[in-house]
Formats: sequence, C-alpha cells, structure tokens
Amino acid sequence: MKLCEIINVGTELLLGEILNRDAQILCEKLAALGISVRRAMTVGDNPGRLKEDFLLALGRSDIVILTGGLGPTADDLTKEVVAEALGLPLAEDAAQKERIEAFFRRRGYPCSKSNMKQALVPEGCTVLYNDNGTAPGCFIQTGEGKAVALLPGPPRELLPMLEQSLLPLLRPYGSGVIVSHYVRTVRLGESRMAELAGELLDMENPTVAPYAKEGEAYLRVSAHGADREAAEALCDPVIKKLKKMLGISVYSVDKELGEVVLDLLTAQGKTLALAESCTGGGVAARLTDLPGASKAFLCSFVTYSNEAKTAMLGVKPSVLSRFGAVSAECARQMAVGARKRSGADVAVAVTGIAGPSAEGTDKPAGLIYFGATDGARIIGEKLETGRCDRGYNRAIAAKIALALARDLLL
Amino acid sequence: MKLCEIINVGTELLLGEILNRDAQILCEKLAALGISVRRAMTVGDNPGRLKEDFLLALGRSDIVILTGGLGPTADDLTKEVVAEALGLPLAEDAAQKERIEAFFRRRGYPCSKSNMKQALVPEGCTVLYNDNGTAPGCFIQTGEGKAVALLPGPPRELLPMLEQSLLPLLRPYGSGVIVSHYVRTVRLGESRMAELAGELLDMENPTVAPYAKEGEAYLRVSAHGADREAAEALCDPVIKKLKKMLGISVYSVDKELGEVVLDLLTAQGKTLALAESCTGGGVAARLTDLPGASKAFLCSFVTYSNEAKTAMLGVKPSVLSRFGAVSAECARQMAVGARKRSGADVAVAVTGIAGPSAEGTDKPAGLIYFGATDGARIIGEKLETGRCDRGYNRAIAAKIALALARDLLL
Repeated sequence: MKLCEIINVGTELLLGEILNRDAQILCEKLAALGISVRRAMTVGDNPGRLKEDFLLALGRSDIVILTGGLGPTADDLTKEVVAEALGLPLAEDAAQKERIEAFFRRRGYPCSKSNMKQALVPEGCTVLYNDNGTAPGCFIQTGEGKAVALLPGPPRELLPMLEQSLLPLLRPYGSGVIVSHYVRTVRLGESRMAELAGELLDMENPTVAPYAKEGEAYLRVSAHGADREAAEALCDPVIKKLKKMLGISVYSVDKELGEVVLDLLTAQGKTLALAESCTGGGVAARLTDLPGASKAFLCSFVTYSNEAKTAMLGVKPSVLSRFGAVSAECARQMAVGARKRSGADVAVAVTGIAGPSAEGTDKPAGLIYFGATDGARIIGEKLETGRCDRGYNRAIAAKIALALARDLLL
Repeated sequence: MKLCEIINVGTELLLGEILNRDAQILCEKLAALGISVRRAMTVGDNPGRLKEDFLLALGRSDIVILTGGLGPTADDLTKEVVAEALGLPLAEDAAQKERIEAFFRRRGYPCSKSNMKQALVPEGCTVLYNDNGTAPGCFIQTGEGKAVALLPGPPRELLPMLEQSLLPLLRPYGSGVIVSHYVRTVRLGESRMAELAGELLDMENPTVAPYAKEGEAYLRVSAHGADREAAEALCDPVIKKLKKMLGISVYSVDKELGEVVLDLLTAQGKTLALAESCTGGGVAARLTDLPGASKAFLCSFVTYSNEAKTAMLGVKPSVLSRFGAVSAECARQMAVGARKRSGADVAVAVTGIAGPSAEGTDKPAGLIYFGATDGARIIGEKLETGRCDRGYNRAIAAKIALALARDLLL
C-alpha cells in the first residue's frame, strides 16, 4: 500500500483562526482510494521550515500532498518552496494566464501584478485548473517515482479539484477500493441506534460504525474490495439488514433529508411552503442549498416578529396573547396560514426558543413546536432539547421540520 | 518566545472519520498566552512512529502537547509511548483510581481491568484530573526544562481540562500576550485590498496579513506585547491607518456584517425586512444566527417561485414576463413590496441565478441583482460572479444584500 503524507500550510491554522477541514477531506478521499495517510502536518508560512518538512515527508513517503499558500500575496509561497526543493524552475502556463485574465474581466476588477504570480507553475507538472478560484493546483511526478501535489487551501476550491483532477491521477497509486454508505436516521438517539444495530457493529468487512451530528444519528457502512462492484456487493446485504432493523427512522441511504423531501414532493407532483420563526430562514436555506429546489419549493414566510406572524400568516392575536408565539396552537396556525396564502399543497411551520437565553418568557430555551398540514390533516410535534446552544437548537429544529414534511408525504 | 508542537494521535483522524478540532482549540489558546505553535502533526495509533515523531518534536521545541490515545482500549497508547521515551515508569495514582471506581459505581457498570489502565500515570507528573470522562491528562517537566502535556482527545473533555488545569501550568512558558483584530471589508478583492494596504503588510509587530473568504477580504492585525494593553496599543494606530487607506469598504473591525447591520438598525430605532429569491432564506438565517436579531429584524419573504413573488410581494407579472425574475426591475419591486407589506423601515431584496446550471434562461449562473429601499430612496446593485458554484454564489449574495442594507443606513 502506498504511503502518503499531507502538509497543510498556513500560519492562520497554527494561530487557531481557521479549522483545518482540508486534512479530513483528503484523508477520507485517499482512504477510499486505498492510499494510506501516515501523517498530516500543519506548518506556517515559513519557507525554511516548510522546505525542511517537505523534504522529510518526501524522503519517507510515496506521495506528498500540500494544501494552501497558493494565493496571490507575498506570504503565499508553497509553490515556490516545493519547486525549489525539487529543483524545478517556475514557468508561465498560457492557459492559466488566460483564465486569470478572464476572471478579472468578468468581475470588472483590475488584474494586479501579484495576480499574475498565479499563472506560474513548476516546469513539467500537470496543471490542475481551478474552476472555483484563481489559484491553480499542480501534480508533479519525481524522478524517483514519487508524486507531489499542490492544492488550494479553501475547501470549496480544494474539494472539486481533488475529485475532478487529482484523484484520477492518484488512482494508479491506490490499492483496491473502499466504498462507504451512510444509513441515515431521524428521531433516534445514537446509543439506541447502536443497540438496534447489535452485532452488525462487530463486522470486519464491511465495517459498521455509529455517528451522531446535530440531532441526527447515522451508521457508516464501509467495505474494502478489489473494485467498486465488489465493495458495493459487500455493503448491499448489510444495508438491507440495517434498514429492516431500524425501521421507519431510516429516512435514506446517503441522501440528505432535504433531498428526500424534495424527491417525495416531485414524485407526487406537490409543492411546499414553509413558515419559520426560530429557524429564521434556516429550513428554506437548507432546502434551497439543493439545486433544483425550485421544482417543488414555493416560498418561506420567515415571520420573526409577532406582528409578521399575524400580518403574513394570519395567526390570530388571541392565540399569541393566550398561548404565546412558542406554542402548539401558533405552530398549527402558521402552517395553515402558509398553505393558504401560498397555494402550496403542503406547509410546515416551526416556532421556538433558539436561545441562548429565553428572555421575556417563562419557557425554556430549546422548546420548539412544529405544525404541518396538507389540507386534509394537521399534525404537530413538540421538541425539548434542554440545551441553550442556539446553533444546535436551530439545526435540529430544521431537521425535525423536514422530517414532519416527510411524515405527511409518506 | 517558547516554541510548541502539537501531536494529535488517532488513526480515525488519518482515515478522515473525525474532524480535528483539538488542534484549532490548542493553537488558539496557546497563541493568546504568547506561546508560538510551530507545527501541528496528526499521527496514527502506531507506537513506533509516535515515538519517533515525539522525540523529533521534543528535540526542536520547548513544549510538546499530545492529544488522544488515553482511552482504556488496547490501541490507546500515547501515555505508554511518551513515558517510555522519557524513561519514566508508570505508577498508579490513588486519587485517579478512586475517581474511576466512583465513576463506575455511579453508572452501575462493573469496572473492568482495562479501565484501571487509566489510573496509571508517568511517575513524577502533575495529574490533570478529568471532570468529563475517565482519562486523566498529565503534565511533565523534563530535566532539560522542557514541558510535555497529554490531553484526552474528545473536545468536550480536552477544552475544560486545558482551560482549568493546563493553561495555568503553561503560563510561565508564555511570553506576553498576542492580540489579533480583523479589519473586514466588502466589495474589495483580496489582491486589491493587499495593494491598498501596501507596506503595512511588511510590518513585524503588529503583523498585517490578508485573507479572503466567501467573497469577503479581510486583514488580520496581530500584535505581541507584554500584556493585553500593550498589544492593543500596538494594534490601534495600524488599524486606524488601514481604515483610512481602505475607506468605505471597511465595514467593521472584528464584527460580522450582520452584526453591523443589526447595530445600525438598533441605534437608529429602525426595522428591517428581506425579500429573498436565490439566497432562499440564507440572508435571514445569517442575521438570525445572531442572538437578539429579533430587536430589529421583522421578517423575510422567501419567494422562490414567480407566483410567490407576485402574491407575497406584489411584483408585477409584466415585470416578470418582460425582464424576468432575475432583473434589476424585479429586485427593486421585491424590495418595495417587502417594505410595504411588512411595515419595516428598510427592506432589501436579492434575486439571481445561484447555479450550478442556469436552466431555462439565457442568463448566466452567478448573475445576481439586489434592491434596497428606505422609502425615500431605492438603490440597486448587480453582481456577476462568473462562477457556477451554488454555495459560493449564495454566500456572496447574502453578503452583498447585507452590505446594501448598510449603505442605506449609513
């Protein structure tokens, strides 16, 4: 098995200003290719130490991947250091130069001299063009049969370049294939899920591992095979068993909940409207993160104030004064109002106290009510997270709102 | 200044199963103490490589902090490897033994032999007791005046132990304090910003470094001083200069744009409404991420479909048929409609093509129009990102929408 080391470059990482997501992305993708990452190192924007660490890594590994330090400013020097360490001069790449000029023409910004630094690449490398930024990556094969790759630091530039350009070049270095699938559940705790999965958690190939994130628990099923087909064939029966054991809590294999809801809507030719208070647009934002949401999603009434709840959704002032905005009654009226005023087939509403404090009410942070209607039925749900964490409460509320839409559509 | 290296131990990190949050937590807290982290390394649960990397780090640094590998199972071996490398035997700590036994008594579980492995610590160390788990940390001072610390891997165990136990022990190794501030801009590219900052980027103390994230460019001003006051006094004049050099593009020092807009609204006793199409609730979600948003933010009309734009905001069908939903005219009518129907003082609207494709239109992905009104004036803006990246386009659109609200309020 070929050995790989990762070097993430950036003083901002060592100052703790930025969370290093690149290392995880790379480790996960390389593992799937059967390439073993032995070390991941973070170093600052210091040419001396970077060169020292790069040569050490190259000496003991088959592949070295560096991220970051490819920007246009003077402290971006990964490319320069690596080229010098390998004895390669930097040369202008015509296609990359044209890309940079076009980028600035479109933006209407002037293209400064420092930007043209990003047209330079180590001589003889394979240029990895960047569709999401101006910094090109590159792939270098050394005389000793080793491989060196440079990728941009921002994950949204790194990930597509990795998937589209670098991984195909690294495939010859991999051994076999690792395939992973995620059995995703909602309204099920991680430990309860693990109990239900029982001895499947002790398997060797595929492995089954429990995870939890933002109120959602899921199982990763991961198999190693000679090729994708062989690995899939190992996963298949285990996933089927897990779905049977976990029942209705399983909302998908791999797909996000928002995608599942949009698929159900599209298949049934139905449309959706939302009414959001404590999530403040978060449910709509999650749905519309998905391309093609416009096929089924009509609108969200983000009614943060009481006045907006009455004016935009027709929630009765008497309900607000008697039960408060955070109540089952308000959630139901919000859902009914959203459906009526939008003309959607299905409407879902959420209202609650996101926290961190619960000023001006005698209700606790983390208390959240949901309502949903398809015209024929009105259903509701109540959630008490017992937490004051605003981000957590908003995230789990968005998930339950989508789960309620799924309930109505099933 | 004392030099520190961090070693995060765990094969799960190298497989990409877990995001490494420990490194960021440590880097941030150490920087604030005036301890410079030179390298952060992730290694697997392999005793040979761990020993090699530990000795290398200890040889070139004053402080080495290791995290993870302190659990009760056989692959947890950080403590064993470090003790052996330092020539220290492991000895049972009576207080730690009592803690473990009490933990299992409370839980009603039997205490297994492997759990008692966690009562062992390197002889002569300071034990860092764990109030959130069973693994103790430890702090070792070597004969050569160097310091070694071991911390548990899970962030919710590591963070309290770090703050309550380890940082006070490391204070003598710190030298003064590092203070960082962020001069944040909007509508300014990173390279243009860097050019305007000119030779301030070459300063030594404070240092000034340019960064870019989701269409926002910012400068980090970071000073090292004997105490916080001294460090702040070094930052102050440089921040003032930068604000002058970058002009109106600077929207804040440190504060997020949403916070700046909410502060302006609150100070002027005004309220805000939004009308969102391509951002799909993302502007509202960003604003309501901030506790206290309800003081000034009334509502958002997330009108994803054309019908919703007409029904909820009163956009004229003739505007939609003549100019399309992605047009300056539509953005203006959305803003006017949102202000009128919500009763807010200020309304901002955004409509565009988030991508990745631009199906059914002859307009490109990344074309986004904005409108804003305070009743007296209507202003607009057009953005062409030239990118097909849905996430990027939505993020930068949310930022410009907030910038337009700021423009109206200034």
